[in-house]
Amino acid sequence: MSSLRVLGIDPGLTRCGVGVVDVARNRTATLVHVGVVRSAPEMPIAERLATIARGIREVLDAHSPDVVAVERVFAQHNLHSVTGTAQASGVALMLAAERGIPAATHTPSEVKAAVTGYGSADKRQVQTMIQRVLRLDALPQPADAADALALALCHAWGGGASAQAHGADTSLTPAQRAWADAEKRTRRARVART
Amino acid sequence: MSSLRVLGIDPGLTRCGVGVVDVARNRTATLVHVGVVRSAPEMPIAERLATIARGIREVLDAHSPDVVAVERVFAQHNLHSVTGTAQASGVALMLAAERGIPAATHTPSEVKAAVTGYGSADKRQVQTMIQRVLRLDALPQPADAADALALALCHAWGGGASAQAHGADTSLTPAQRAWADAEKRTRRARVART
Repeated sequence: MSSLRVLGIDPGLTRCGVGVVDVARNRTATLVHVGVVRSAPEMPIAERLATIARGIREVLDAHSPDVVAVERVFAQHNLHSVTGTAQASGVALMLAAERGIPAATHTPSEVKAAVTGYGSADKRQVQTMIQRVLRLDALPQPADAADALALALCHAWGGGASAQAHGADTSLTPAQRAWADAEKRTRRARVART
Repeated sequence: MSSLRVLGIDPGLTRCGVGVVDVARNRTATLVHVGVVRSAPEMPIAERLATIARGIREVLDAHSPDVVAVERVFAQHNLHSVTGTAQASGVALMLAAERGIPAATHTPSEVKAAVTGYGSADKRQVQTMIQRVLRLDALPQPADAADALALALCHAWGGGASAQAHGADTSLTPAQRAWADAEKRTRRARVART
């Protein structure tokens, strides 16, 4: 296979980000598809999950990814919304496995480190790097969509287990570090201009 | 329809309890099916969820329930296992909705109150009441299977929203209270005998 097609999924009930990228051996990435699957908060939870499942199946059917990368869910501050996010992530992982597609999970800080070089990067930094890496005309919108693309890139570029084990910054591959350095230079340049 | 067929699901990755009961208008309940769907802890999470999904689909196919009742997941003490439980519950709810079967969630204390009259009942009390209500020769084993049957009975007997709103004890229906009183009398009688 000349390139790896990765579907990134940022799980959620109200907005579930889905992004598909092709990543070549030389790590060049190309946008294939990006979108957000939505379900209405007033719907029963089971219907919401079925709606999310339908949207994810459509992306699987349309784009046949080689691998699926899903954001790893942690119980954080908002315990209520974490349950819904975990439920959506469970559906996403199950759908991949049912089709025999390998599925992986990545933490938010792994993903941020992989695409910006900094595990605590803000949403704008992630969007900016995604725009640059995928050579897009505008920032990917909304943020959930950018996060899904970032997940896909993180997986393709090998972010993951090592990032978890060794901390975000030391886990960067040379290519990721090069990107991160380029991004820092650009940011400085932009600040200098304004 | 002469009776309501309810599938209760106690979600989990290692053991997911599934129990089907028929409940007549006079609230008499009959066991249809009980079992536990298991997945091996060493399997990847996506494969585990697909295994759980396969087991639930088999029960849906074999027994065509009118409604599905799933235990509501809260982030409790063990945040790690809660994520897996929430993921399994999401899969269960989604599978019901995909088949157009109504799905409801009930909290553990609603379920305990519905079948024992006491929202903090222990597992043994729940198993004992399930054995009695369903006229079983032995205690339902393992506890996950008993919990799944208790969920199904709780739903059929109308435990739920009111129990949440008004506290477990005041929410008992007359029939539930009758069961609870009978259970208390039996327990006293048994204690007196031993």
